[in-house]
Amino acid sequence: MNTGLHEECGVFGICSSHTTDVAATTYAALYALQHRGQESCGIVVNDQGIFSLHKDLGLVPEVFDRSQIEKLGQGNISIGHVRYSTTGKPSRSNAQPIVVRHIKGPMSIAHNGNLVNAYHLRKRYETKGATFHTTNDTEIISYVVTEQRMKRTSIEEAVEYAMYDLQGAYSLVIMSSQKLIAARDPNGFRPLCMGHCRDGSIVFASESCAFDSIDAIFDRDLEPGEIVVADKESVRSIRAHCRKKKAFCVFEYVYFARPDSMIEGCCVHDARIRAGKILWKEHPVNADVVAGVPDSGLDAALGLSQASGIPYEVGFVKNRYVGRTFIQPSQKMRTNSVRIKLNVVKSAIAGKRVILVDDSIVRGTTCRRIVSLLREAGAKEVHMRISCPPFTNPCYFGVDIDSKENLIACQMTIPEICDHIGADTLGYLSVDGVQSLTSPEMKPQEGLCMACFTGDYPIPVPKEMPKDKFEMKIRE
Amino acid sequence: MNTGLHEECGVFGICSSHTTDVAATTYAALYALQHRGQESCGIVVNDQGIFSLHKDLGLVPEVFDRSQIEKLGQGNISIGHVRYSTTGKPSRSNAQPIVVRHIKGPMSIAHNGNLVNAYHLRKRYETKGATFHTTNDTEIISYVVTEQRMKRTSIEEAVEYAMYDLQGAYSLVIMSSQKLIAARDPNGFRPLCMGHCRDGSIVFASESCAFDSIDAIFDRDLEPGEIVVADKESVRSIRAHCRKKKAFCVFEYVYFARPDSMIEGCCVHDARIRAGKILWKEHPVNADVVAGVPDSGLDAALGLSQASGIPYEVGFVKNRYVGRTFIQPSQKMRTNSVRIKLNVVKSAIAGKRVILVDDSIVRGTTCRRIVSLLREAGAKEVHMRISCPPFTNPCYFGVDIDSKENLIACQMTIPEICDHIGADTLGYLSVDGVQSLTSPEMKPQEGLCMACFTGDYPIPVPKEMPKDKFEMKIRE
Amino acid sequence: MNTGLHEECGVFGICSSHTTDVAATTYAALYALQHRGQESCGIVVNDQGIFSLHKDLGLVPEVFDRSQIEKLGQGNISIGHVRYSTTGKPSRSNAQPIVVRHIKGPMSIAHNGNLVNAYHLRKRYETKGATFHTTNDTEIISYVVTEQRMKRTSIEEAVEYAMYDLQGAYSLVIMSSQKLIAARDPNGFRPLCMGHCRDGSIVFASESCAFDSIDAIFDRDLEPGEIVVADKESVRSIRAHCRKKKAFCVFEYVYFARPDSMIEGCCVHDARIRAGKILWKEHPVNADVVAGVPDSGLDAALGLSQASGIPYEVGFVKNRYVGRTFIQPSQKMRTNSVRIKLNVVKSAIAGKRVILVDDSIVRGTTCRRIVSLLREAGAKEVHMRISCPPFTNPCYFGVDIDSKENLIACQMTIPEICDHIGADTLGYLSVDGVQSLTSPEMKPQEGLCMACFTGDYPIPVPKEMPKDKFEMKIRE
Amino acid sequence: MNTGLHEECGVFGICSSHTTDVAATTYAALYALQHRGQESCGIVVNDQGIFSLHKDLGLVPEVFDRSQIEKLGQGNISIGHVRYSTTGKPSRSNAQPIVVRHIKGPMSIAHNGNLVNAYHLRKRYETKGATFHTTNDTEIISYVVTEQRMKRTSIEEAVEYAMYDLQGAYSLVIMSSQKLIAARDPNGFRPLCMGHCRDGSIVFASESCAFDSIDAIFDRDLEPGEIVVADKESVRSIRAHCRKKKAFCVFEYVYFARPDSMIEGCCVHDARIRAGKILWKEHPVNADVVAGVPDSGLDAALGLSQASGIPYEVGFVKNRYVGRTFIQPSQKMRTNSVRIKLNVVKSAIAGKRVILVDDSIVRGTTCRRIVSLLREAGAKEVHMRISCPPFTNPCYFGVDIDSKENLIACQMTIPEICDHIGADTLGYLSVDGVQSLTSPEMKPQEGLCMACFTGDYPIPVPKEMPKDKFEMKIRE
Repeated sequence: MNTGLHEECGVFGICSSHTTDVAATTYAALYALQHRGQESCGIVVNDQGIFSLHKDLGLVPEVFDRSQIEKLGQGNISIGHVRYSTTGKPSRSNAQPIVVRHIKGPMSIAHNGNLVNAYHLRKRYETKGATFHTTNDTEIISYVVTEQRMKRTSIEEAVEYAMYDLQGAYSLVIMSSQKLIAARDPNGFRPLCMGHCRDGSIVFASESCAFDSIDAIFDRDLEPGEIVVADKESVRSIRAHCRKKKAFCVFEYVYFARPDSMIEGCCVHDARIRAGKILWKEHPVNADVVAGVPDSGLDAALGLSQASGIPYEVGFVKNRYVGRTFIQPSQKMRTNSVRIKLNVVKSAIAGKRVILVDDSIVRGTTCRRIVSLLREAGAKEVHMRISCPPFTNPCYFGVDIDSKENLIACQMTIPEICDHIGADTLGYLSVDGVQSLTSPEMKPQEGLCMACFTGDYPIPVPKEMPKDKFEMKIRE
Repeated sequence: MNTGLHEECGVFGICSSHTTDVAATTYAALYALQHRGQESCGIVVNDQGIFSLHKDLGLVPEVFDRSQIEKLGQGNISIGHVRYSTTGKPSRSNAQPIVVRHIKGPMSIAHNGNLVNAYHLRKRYETKGATFHTTNDTEIISYVVTEQRMKRTSIEEAVEYAMYDLQGAYSLVIMSSQKLIAARDPNGFRPLCMGHCRDGSIVFASESCAFDSIDAIFDRDLEPGEIVVADKESVRSIRAHCRKKKAFCVFEYVYFARPDSMIEGCCVHDARIRAGKILWKEHPVNADVVAGVPDSGLDAALGLSQASGIPYEVGFVKNRYVGRTFIQPSQKMRTNSVRIKLNVVKSAIAGKRVILVDDSIVRGTTCRRIVSLLREAGAKEVHMRISCPPFTNPCYFGVDIDSKENLIACQMTIPEICDHIGADTLGYLSVDGVQSLTSPEMKPQEGLCMACFTGDYPIPVPKEMPKDKFEMKIRE
Repeated sequence: MNTGLHEECGVFGICSSHTTDVAATTYAALYALQHRGQESCGIVVNDQGIFSLHKDLGLVPEVFDRSQIEKLGQGNISIGHVRYSTTGKPSRSNAQPIVVRHIKGPMSIAHNGNLVNAYHLRKRYETKGATFHTTNDTEIISYVVTEQRMKRTSIEEAVEYAMYDLQGAYSLVIMSSQKLIAARDPNGFRPLCMGHCRDGSIVFASESCAFDSIDAIFDRDLEPGEIVVADKESVRSIRAHCRKKKAFCVFEYVYFARPDSMIEGCCVHDARIRAGKILWKEHPVNADVVAGVPDSGLDAALGLSQASGIPYEVGFVKNRYVGRTFIQPSQKMRTNSVRIKLNVVKSAIAGKRVILVDDSIVRGTTCRRIVSLLREAGAKEVHMRISCPPFTNPCYFGVDIDSKENLIACQMTIPEICDHIGADTLGYLSVDGVQSLTSPEMKPQEGLCMACFTGDYPIPVPKEMPKDKFEMKIRE
Repeated sequence: MNTGLHEECGVFGICSSHTTDVAATTYAALYALQHRGQESCGIVVNDQGIFSLHKDLGLVPEVFDRSQIEKLGQGNISIGHVRYSTTGKPSRSNAQPIVVRHIKGPMSIAHNGNLVNAYHLRKRYETKGATFHTTNDTEIISYVVTEQRMKRTSIEEAVEYAMYDLQGAYSLVIMSSQKLIAARDPNGFRPLCMGHCRDGSIVFASESCAFDSIDAIFDRDLEPGEIVVADKESVRSIRAHCRKKKAFCVFEYVYFARPDSMIEGCCVHDARIRAGKILWKEHPVNADVVAGVPDSGLDAALGLSQASGIPYEVGFVKNRYVGRTFIQPSQKMRTNSVRIKLNVVKSAIAGKRVILVDDSIVRGTTCRRIVSLLREAGAKEVHMRISCPPFTNPCYFGVDIDSKENLIACQMTIPEICDHIGADTLGYLSVDGVQSLTSPEMKPQEGLCMACFTGDYPIPVPKEMPKDKFEMKIRE
């Protein structure tokens, strides 16, 4: 429920052959991608080369009301973005999409991912006289694309050549006066898929669930390294970068993505069901019921129940009204916040041996409280099962994992963690297990990035990565 | 997900022997009761006879931030209220608790229920020169209690004698300068329970889940007709009205209450599991999976799966960010709103025969769209099961059921409804079945109000009940 | 600029023969009356007996935007109210107009003034079982009118008889299903005038400047004690109470009313010019320039300049953007707030002997700072002239004068005050002088209430008047 | 009251030797500069090289509350900005100060003025790969300074060399990690002055009234072309650009600046008094009273009265509550907006021959309505006097004058204008007269830019100047 892990954003783009209400479509799509980022959001509409922009801090329904969408007006291309919420201060100027004007006209970019050579690139442009208004990678990308745009004959060619400079994880949608371009990094760290609306408009999104919400048809994922260019007349692919080994973030399956999304040919829900099944195989235990921690532990709990035959139960009710904005009304109440968010269904738990499934343990604090709630409710035994391996390494590709000091698996052995959280037994999904998530045949599958579990990074990573990597020394 | 049925409110009260942050406690408790009303909410704090009040339209976290709670200050008694949201215009002046001053001092009341003789009572007071500021029953109750207060020696005695005049459903918390009083109508239509905090404070709430959220201990339900009086020194019961037959609203089990609440000795979750089991017994069918409509159909679906052995599946993902405020960005998108709120997990449904469980069918519109989503997702068959009987009669006890013209079960036979919603088969829980919800032994149980299914009202009801029953002719 | 004196409200009403946008007209009129109250405001529209209401804390443009006015809709009668801002916490539930329903239908009341027998009346109704939702006099008035309404054949007759019970200052507009009624207390403490729009609609307002803003024609003041009844067909007067001696609040001329308003046959601007002239006569002094404290001291300064021949100068620039909301950004800056609100035009003041004119001195704090600003700017001499006599007595008729302890004139002699504020000389307008304000012939004029200067109250006043006179013990 | 002319901004900067609440000081100073821009505002605080920023659309008290100022925190340098409001859509991304990071660290800039070679400069940087996030000149200036910063040893040297590239009007405050720099263009088109606080802090502001509001001492204007550099230890001037002829905008005296400001050795109030005196000399007429249009016509009216001996009168009351936000509640009311903003004091006007003084006539619409209000109020004659010559030429130096088609003086002769506005006579201040504004000896004074009246531009101006000069094609 509160893993302490944050995805960096979701993107969406639409290109129609005619002028229509692309802003409303983008709005509905961002709603479906909201789980990928709750700090800020934005939409840019292109009406015959005129860009209209609105973005702000807040959830999609907070930032956009009907009048705001009407002000964005009609157009034939639009892109949108949702951005994640860190524990620190949110910053309005980092909201996306960004809109810049360069020598060839206006350009808007929305980005999901993280560049590993951002610092290096930034230095390079600053040395040439560039000024930076934000601390996000997207502005750096805008410089790289702009630099190429001056030498190339088209925006798509500029993106193609820019990609030789961009290292790391990026799923991009880029809008120029005439075109909508989607691009995925050569390792395909982050998801990006394409589809079409019933009126023929081309759509791109971080996840296929966005297409369902606008009644569009999912066509396929972009290949790692693929660039797709859409304009009023046509859609075409550039595959010059499609040669790298895929390294898709396995944590998208485990936690980030919505269960109803299809990614890389596998339904996220199925992957989680499978995680539960493998968990059972790897860590069987006698128990009376299986329960999941809402919401992201539920699917794996169901899978574990199916594999084990132990009845699935609704162990908790999650308070649907506790959003980003839960405020501790007083110091005294501080310890009660888990209690307000989650409540045990006592009759389902009391007197039972419970297998409790969650997607991850980051600091251990929340997990410990949840186990304690079960004990208070009368659980006889609590067997914790985690649907991924222990986090032991930082992510450089867009997941905001806590520092090593805060990662419990860097500080304790598994038995120690089990003891710390107060469980009777504790089982993590193995690295082999997590590799099999997307494959029903249980064969070790290539193409997943599991560096946060293994330390085996698919591409070279910087030795050090400061928290505020650009030391902008600017707070907002 | 959108039954068109609305509960009229949730109440909470706390009485401590000492001055403490009762506002913060009430705030946390209202959070847990938020499902009972999302239109408006309020808290009144009593600090040595001085009442501090804040209420407004909006959810608990919208109306109360930390500074607002700090402004309410410390006290030894506090009451709170959440109020439901109709499709019509919400009205700020109807927000509760109401605070009035009468001859013996200030009094604050929060109320859940509906009086059947409200019109009559109002007339009576108006004839004596009373003026009314709101259209809610609570103001009428304040007059009845005030009238008695002038003749009686204490507020509790006033409440006791007032109850001879109040007919219908009411669960009340009433705060005077010195006392906190909780009272439940003699039929016990609406829930009301009591408990205590670890510091000894007495608490009352519509549902026990409110106690869990503040780490209080549930003691018991108030008996129908019972009055409980708490002050700094003591707690005592008045049972003068405890002779009527209980007629607890069965729909609290089916839909309104939170699954983790204990009501009348039965866990709501268990009642729903049982509803699913009985549904299977009454309407068996060959199928591949069982799925529930989130959130209130999920428990019954699990019960049906347990009884039938047909695998339980997660059929839908509900968008957690679509709150009260979902705004259709344009006319064209109007039909898409179910699509944005609910999405089918295709891999769990495609090619399968699905038993779909929901709590009720009101107009049939939403149900029809949901069945259609399953068909689009490739369901081979859709067997609809409803965990209560068809609604055919208005409720006079606090449930805002649509008019007969809008109730599909008043307009069509069950086969016609089945055809209308596009299901292969349709089965409702029988009246006998719903009677057995709270009892594992499946014996017909006394003490439930099922008038909305049977027309058999436990007390006389008015012949006609205008929508705006007081014809206040005031809009806000 | 900040006298510490507050008027209690402004009222407006319109009655048209046809359905039209009375809400928009009331909105524009309230704008012109905003100086009479900046705490809260409200509008009620009557569309064939259906009342639509909106009121809230804030200025007119803050509470009403276009959509809010559109929601109020069309109608043929409307009333509006602006309420003053005290230094204490503003209370939403005290906002007006109030809307109540009594035995004969809905009624809405807006009130300017203060009842001297409010406590007594309240007691009387409470003893009969009444409950009170607010602490304002308006709710008491609603009970008195309702009581009479039960015995009389019309609302106007009810108002007529109610007036036998109401003692003190009141200018009322009252709206029933069919009628608009304006009533002024028999002493005429507070202003109330009537006029007509170009389409024939009848309008009532606290001040005639409201008519100018809606392009209506001023007809006349209501006589003290007069009741005027308007409906679709006719307008008629009831003069049963028109026998008392007039006692119009002289401070309306000195400070409250807008200079462009005509009251009791005298333009407020002219009265202030005359105050300046008399001041000169009573307190001549050699000087180089005359300057007024913006805004309410400017007219009297001009008059003094005209009488004396000493050049009028713009001594200060007032910051037009410092509204109700000026916030001290830090403790350290606290002393600077006068400096931010007012700045001396140095070139007009430096090296000069200055006569400085203001409308009143309440606590002396602000006055002392202003004199100090002039000294800093190089004024050689500062001769303070005040366009009314010293305040030495509380007002029971609607002016919120500080307690005696805070009134500097109750604590010090005039020479001591002169010394305290740092002026070279200090002259107050005499009681004789203030009596001549409205009359060019300088003859002592009857019909003014000057009790705050003389202690000679036109009607009996209560011995004690608690600050929160009803001891509601309710904070909001 | 609504000239249709807008100043482009006000700036403020403070540099202290120690860490203190510079944000609060900047806040108070911006309050005093609010008249120079009401669209947006911002403050940046420098705490040992860390910049904290807040800016948004709205007035100073709307954008900044106490918590916002506290979040900005302490520091030793701070700059602030207010921006004007056009009739078009305000844009959040154009709010200032802008904060960028370049190769040598963070930099923040606030700017008042307008570059005439902005288009050319922008092109130059875009050709080198620059991207632009805004449409304002300030971002261009940031590139020019950054380019120089790479070649120079200090930020002040960078500013000095950047000024060789900047053509047009600019008054700048620039903050680096260590320094605060103020710079004024070599013609000194816009005002910029310096002073010091009582604790020794150095302050810069567009107008001296900002110093008064923070109790700082005005020292002097910056010379045209002067750069002043302040840091913790010292203050020093760079005068490399101090050779051009001064061309200070005369309209600052006529309309923009606050009367209490000292600019170029002349108090603005005195200049306006003098304008009124010259107006009388140039256009005498028999009349009974002189009145000014609030607020900017008042001083000249007083001057005209002094010169002519015709009594000065308060002709109008301006509604102080009609701010930026006046909303026409309905179409029907559209014509009433002048009426709501201004009301005639009838007793001062009726039956009189009136000389009415205003600062300018732009389109003539407002002027026509005001004359008509006077006629309705019974003025026998209306003699319009304007305290500057007719506008016939666009301004390229920071005043947002309407297009020629909208300037009435480009479309009509003076008699035609007089006829159009309905006045009996009309007299504009002559060009010779406006030249004498700042000089008591009435000698033609050098050093003023009067190009909007004469077409005689002090520096070369672009042939064409598109409304959206950069064709950003971006709306927000």
